[in-house]
Amino acid sequence: MITVKNNKLINYGNRGMGLESDINLTNEYYKEKKIALIYKKPIPIKVLKINSTKTRIQDAFYEQKSTLDYSGIYKEKYIEFDAKETNSKTSFPFANIHKHQIEHIKNVMYFGGIAFLIVRFNYFNKTFLLPGKVLINYIEVSKRKSIPYSYFIDNLPEIEIKYRPRLDYLNKVDIS
Amino acid sequence: MITVKNNKLINYGNRGMGLESDINLTNEYYKEKKIALIYKKPIPIKVLKINSTKTRIQDAFYEQKSTLDYSGIYKEKYIEFDAKETNSKTSFPFANIHKHQIEHIKNVMYFGGIAFLIVRFNYFNKTFLLPGKVLINYIEVSKRKSIPYSYFIDNLPEIEIKYRPRLDYLNKVDIS
Repeated sequence: MITVKNNKLINYGNRGMGLESDINLTNEYYKEKKIALIYKKPIPIKVLKINSTKTRIQDAFYEQKSTLDYSGIYKEKYIEFDAKETNSKTSFPFANIHKHQIEHIKNVMYFGGIAFLIVRFNYFNKTFLLPGKVLINYIEVSKRKSIPYSYFIDNLPEIEIKYRPRLDYLNKVDIS
Repeated sequence: MITVKNNKLINYGNRGMGLESDINLTNEYYKEKKIALIYKKPIPIKVLKINSTKTRIQDAFYEQKSTLDYSGIYKEKYIEFDAKETNSKTSFPFANIHKHQIEHIKNVMYFGGIAFLIVRFNYFNKTFLLPGKVLINYIEVSKRKSIPYSYFIDNLPEIEIKYRPRLDYLNKVDIS
């Protein structure tokens, strides 16, 4: 399985894909149980060269994402979110959230959709739901470049890893 | 501008992209005027070969789409649709709608989203909104392999081409 991190391709081989794998399994469960319809979007690429029969891409690169990775419908609401993992023990850095993605999160909320991040601290093996509103507030009001781990522990819902559904994140989404 | 039709890449150069171009212009207008947030999804690809620095795709092909090309939010509802052009003078053929896409349209409707196609008959330069429900009914009940042009004329809303917004399709979507 090949995925992309910071515009680089990473081959995860057989060792699973951590958070992304957990989310994909959960989305299959949601669909099967008719709870929600959530899809991972394809990764945007810029094609530079194609073959003569126009069936094969011979040169291309990954473009910066301007939206979030997953979107779908839950309780008739538009849902969009991204999955982020960090190896930091102290905080979740904003470094790998692009400016366009921040704008997009604001837009989704403005139009009545639900936007959030699922953040995993790999060191602690703990996963949290970070609502778009909290993220935007942190970025714009506090001017910090990260959210401390302690803030997650004290204020944000933890999403536990279980057997089925693997990572019941929708259970932590506030539909109000 | 390079796009994909029937898994082949087509370079439209400077001559515009017809229906797709009209929809993209309209979506920009919708976003600017705070009417709706609609995005074109990236095209799914299968990567076969990457370079050593993992920044460049060297061999890949287009995968069959299992969802529709555009998605977003309108009046707090989940919207998803595809744009289809036909050169036929008599009917809109189902040949280029994949089985997975039909399943997906049904799922979107089941979960309370709005799914439809925007169909353009190039010969007549006429564009119509084809609701998911009508499409599914035609495919499953009538067992036909196409919808006659006369059915569009008699029963479905025509979307006129104007200056701004270019193709006001949301105006024809029934949110009820």
